[in-house]
Amino acid sequence: MRAVIPYKKENAKSRLSTVMTREQRETFVEKMLLDVVATLNEGGIRNLDIITPKACDVKKEVKANIIEDDTDLNDCLNEYLSQKEEPILIIMADLPLVKFSHIKDIVASKADVTIVPGKGGGTNILFIRKPENFRVKYYGSSFENHCMIAAQQKLSIRVYDSFLASTDIDEPQDITELLLHGQGIAKDYAERRFGKTESKGRVKISPFNEILMS
Amino acid sequence: MRAVIPYKKENAKSRLSTVMTREQRETFVEKMLLDVVATLNEGGIRNLDIITPKACDVKKEVKANIIEDDTDLNDCLNEYLSQKEEPILIIMADLPLVKFSHIKDIVASKADVTIVPGKGGGTNILFIRKPENFRVKYYGSSFENHCMIAAQQKLSIRVYDSFLASTDIDEPQDITELLLHGQGIAKDYAERRFGKTESKGRVKISPFNEILMS
Repeated sequence: MRAVIPYKKENAKSRLSTVMTREQRETFVEKMLLDVVATLNEGGIRNLDIITPKACDVKKEVKANIIEDDTDLNDCLNEYLSQKEEPILIIMADLPLVKFSHIKDIVASKADVTIVPGKGGGTNILFIRKPENFRVKYYGSSFENHCMIAAQQKLSIRVYDSFLASTDIDEPQDITELLLHGQGIAKDYAERRFGKTESKGRVKISPFNEILMS
Repeated sequence: MRAVIPYKKENAKSRLSTVMTREQRETFVEKMLLDVVATLNEGGIRNLDIITPKACDVKKEVKANIIEDDTDLNDCLNEYLSQKEEPILIIMADLPLVKFSHIKDIVASKADVTIVPGKGGGTNILFIRKPENFRVKYYGSSFENHCMIAAQQKLSIRVYDSFLASTDIDEPQDITELLLHGQGIAKDYAERRFGKTESKGRVKISPFNEILMS
């Protein structure tokens, strides 16, 4: 099997721009990528590709095969899948809460396709046993898209139920989960920038230094 | 063991008031309670208490022992726990995505205390093997509170990792998860009132009929 991480650094995570400058967001996604790569490496997943529009945006220390591709996410992943005959794990770069035990469970799945939903209908992780029969459709309600694509091709589906693996970091309130439940370098980075504010409702983040809206 | 559900119907779920009238919110919490009770019953949990400020707010069809208590949530639960010698499962009424398989896993835990975190630092489910040694502290960062209380009393802790069980329905975007991943009567109720709107980001709900802000 191989794992592949789609990764974009340049002006990444625009929905965090109310709480982080562009530079901070770019550093933050770099830290999250390093967490995800460390999690994969921890369990011995060495066959790792990173697909990115700009190869130089991936730090040299990241032990992975870098594929430069600046086409649309779906186009480049479908091109990638069409060339593969071994099981493929597609994992997003913004999942610093994922642990290797999740990866181990997911790749042990007997189902043809294992899906970890993201918050709000996204797809955080896809494990595809026979990639030549599968095409991805990210953006929008991609969880439903991927369930439908698998069903159309009569592939068995397992929906993997994990709060940690389903928490993608896209919006300010997601950083609260990172502060509360994280443990890697992205968490350390967030912890130097944000405190937690309690109320009767959900805990919110509070930036230590106010930044200008970008 | 016994399960207990704290329940408040009157003007419930104020953070949903931008998308539901007071009457709709009260009906909605009633449906969610019925889903949670059905999930517990499904697996044979019959020793069920519902603590509520107004006994008549719980429908007659709900097979549970009703305890009327209009004191603060923490006070009434701590009073309740202090009188119990058997393991207690505290489960919130706003968890229509919980399945009985989750309950089964949780009550099979060997840890002294099993915690299912809620979104934003809350506590959705607590399973306490020896309730006489434990006190709850809900509101704010209750997940951290409960971990700390257990640690102070040298009780072993298991954090139960489930996206479905961690999704409490408190804010409009939580209804998206109910529409996408639910299957009970609360989902049916939400489905008659909301559609899903796709974008490049997360899926959002869109009310079929605009309502006045309450």
